[in-house]
Amino acid sequence: MRVEIVAVGTELLLGQIADTNGQWLGEHLAAAGVDSYFHQAVGDNHARIVTALRTGLARGDALIVCGGLGPTQDDITRDALAEVMHVPLVRDEAVARRIEELFLARGRSMPRNNFRQADVPLGAQVIEQTRGTAPGLICPVGNKVVYAVPGVPHEMAEMFERAILPDLRRRMADSGEEGVITSRVLRTWGTSESALAEALQDRIDALDADVGPEGTVTLAFLASGIEGIKVRLTARARDTRRAEALLDAEEQEVRATLTARLGDVVFGVDEVTMEQAVAAELISRGLSFAVAESLTGGLIASRLVDVPGASNWFRGGVVAYDSAVKHSVLGVPEGPVVTADAAVAMAEGARRVLGADVALGITGVAGPERQEGVAPGTVFVGLAFAGAPSLRRELHLPGDRARVRQYSAISALDLLRKTLLTRERGVDAPSLG
Amino acid sequence: MRVEIVAVGTELLLGQIADTNGQWLGEHLAAAGVDSYFHQAVGDNHARIVTALRTGLARGDALIVCGGLGPTQDDITRDALAEVMHVPLVRDEAVARRIEELFLARGRSMPRNNFRQADVPLGAQVIEQTRGTAPGLICPVGNKVVYAVPGVPHEMAEMFERAILPDLRRRMADSGEEGVITSRVLRTWGTSESALAEALQDRIDALDADVGPEGTVTLAFLASGIEGIKVRLTARARDTRRAEALLDAEEQEVRATLTARLGDVVFGVDEVTMEQAVAAELISRGLSFAVAESLTGGLIASRLVDVPGASNWFRGGVVAYDSAVKHSVLGVPEGPVVTADAAVAMAEGARRVLGADVALGITGVAGPERQEGVAPGTVFVGLAFAGAPSLRRELHLPGDRARVRQYSAISALDLLRKTLLTRERGVDAPSLG
Repeated sequence: MRVEIVAVGTELLLGQIADTNGQWLGEHLAAAGVDSYFHQAVGDNHARIVTALRTGLARGDALIVCGGLGPTQDDITRDALAEVMHVPLVRDEAVARRIEELFLARGRSMPRNNFRQADVPLGAQVIEQTRGTAPGLICPVGNKVVYAVPGVPHEMAEMFERAILPDLRRRMADSGEEGVITSRVLRTWGTSESALAEALQDRIDALDADVGPEGTVTLAFLASGIEGIKVRLTARARDTRRAEALLDAEEQEVRATLTARLGDVVFGVDEVTMEQAVAAELISRGLSFAVAESLTGGLIASRLVDVPGASNWFRGGVVAYDSAVKHSVLGVPEGPVVTADAAVAMAEGARRVLGADVALGITGVAGPERQEGVAPGTVFVGLAFAGAPSLRRELHLPGDRARVRQYSAISALDLLRKTLLTRERGVDAPSLG
Repeated sequence: MRVEIVAVGTELLLGQIADTNGQWLGEHLAAAGVDSYFHQAVGDNHARIVTALRTGLARGDALIVCGGLGPTQDDITRDALAEVMHVPLVRDEAVARRIEELFLARGRSMPRNNFRQADVPLGAQVIEQTRGTAPGLICPVGNKVVYAVPGVPHEMAEMFERAILPDLRRRMADSGEEGVITSRVLRTWGTSESALAEALQDRIDALDADVGPEGTVTLAFLASGIEGIKVRLTARARDTRRAEALLDAEEQEVRATLTARLGDVVFGVDEVTMEQAVAAELISRGLSFAVAESLTGGLIASRLVDVPGASNWFRGGVVAYDSAVKHSVLGVPEGPVVTADAAVAMAEGARRVLGADVALGITGVAGPERQEGVAPGTVFVGLAFAGAPSLRRELHLPGDRARVRQYSAISALDLLRKTLLTRERGVDAPSLG
């Protein structure tokens, strides 16, 4: 099954936005073991969309078309699909009703042009819209198929998972294709790509030499900025059960090697974020948490409340951006505020004011200018605990203002995670790389 | 002159990296007034690169091919070009010498496979390498042309500016083409794409009918999630001065129409964010600001500190996630906390505790569960001012937990922006759409 991706939108050709949909789809098709040999992007022009669709159908078994399904005059993917299918567009009344209901639910009046989104090529199957107003389409073309989805990324992703991937799997099973490619990602923080590669080089060599009867496994690294560095394990096997078994064994192997060589650098698997990893450690110990932020300005708090159920353990935070707020609200002693002492005082103040078992204080210089004589990228973290001494750390982080703030937030959370892990083992707090 | 972009690399198809080269080239071709109607991406496979090249040449006058020019076995763009040109590859000794010199200059020994980069299709012109080891190529194919450049972004960009763009300009001049395309984006919040289209339909029709002596202008819409909905103005004219003049006139026209029909929906131009727009209104009035956040959990504060110079007007915030924090720190009266009264009390508490002229309080239900009997997506915003009565608003926002929080943050900032604007005009606070 060869699936070609066609992104529709003049803004893509003009470089006003990147084709992140194509990237996302490429990644998810590969993870599902579906071949994708070509991607195309084309503008909002009827004849050229038709050309792109015909080109894609000539060299692939299926197309996924993103974009051009909205309500305005330049949304013409529907018309191009109808031409390629040699059928007329017909108004789908059920779709039209859902569009009206969506506007009604938001208390907005509906401009008439929204009904264009209910026009469907005759013979196409509708993928019901659950997030936006435009439905997706499954369009048969001979023995091939074109899937059309909106260009809004979260609408596209939801329809891919719910409707397109199951349909593709059915078609692959019908055509007797088998074999799956499955990936798992171990997420690390606080080390470098080359250190990871060096630690795992022997394992990579061993895997290269080994084509076992159950399938093959490969390792790869992907530096992902504030997401850390990812170690991707990819298994190719006859079926999902075998692939998962290979991944389970390999994950164990990789984790053991990394822990022995580099410490607790793996903080999560697949979509687990640093804040989820921290939340899990707090919850398992029954600890409530609060935070006092200066340079990160609410970034740590806003990431923590993204964790479902955060209200069970997250008390809240103080964004003490102005020095006066540090003194008046958090009780930080008068004097310099870009110091390790100030970070600890902020943490202890947050713990007291917000009523938490554990609190984190963070202050530092995001840049571009020095502050209190301290260089940009210098960050101080304080951790305060009920019934245990406070802890302080100094970090030096690279990058511009925005990156220093992002790295500060995740590094501070990682420090908390490692501290909870190592205190439990009765050893001293860790040093940060 | 229609130029198609072909990106080569399996990592693009697998979604391991985004095609930022295609985006960069699209942007720079448009700025130079060169039409680009299609982009393609293809993997490191000889037959499929040949297919992509032939497809591109059939529908365009020129191709720019990025990637696959390196020294390793999977760099096969040269071979595919030779096949499309029906010529052999020949070793270019001058290129080979430069490669050796590059290694020598870096004090490194040169693996032999680097000489592959000196193999050039017979009849192709070399674009000398100045940054990396691989040269670019200008390959005539009949009366058309294929430019090949390395996939390393800064090498690609340098060769585009130095060799490809001048060559394209020569060809365009020879064929009597000229002109530039320039865009400007007006960013809106609080309305729908279809409402914008309806408000501007007459203008779009008038522009379609009008091919003035100074050039043409088109309007398009781009729904961009938490970035709002963008109205893109694109001018095509003989030179940059004329294009900018067309955009200036059109921006004035569009702004007047939108303000008359939909109110102050335009919050910024091009890269201006909502937080920058709010900051500008606060700064111009000499007002300091503070925020008390419940469901947004620090998101508003963290966006505000992204604005350079925020320390001049941003005092700080309280993330009152737990109800107890609302009562104890902000002085919100005991009782329900998901109400308009609570939002106002939070704003007034933040103004008092953090010492600001203006403060915003926000509480609501991000979901997925109801809270205090209130449905997910229901959000209350309070605004407190020094020497003026407080203001309250109820919003109903769509989406899952994360989107409700993001929409809440930007909607609350937009309410503050509109309030500052309308109070100045001596009219009542605006209603939210």
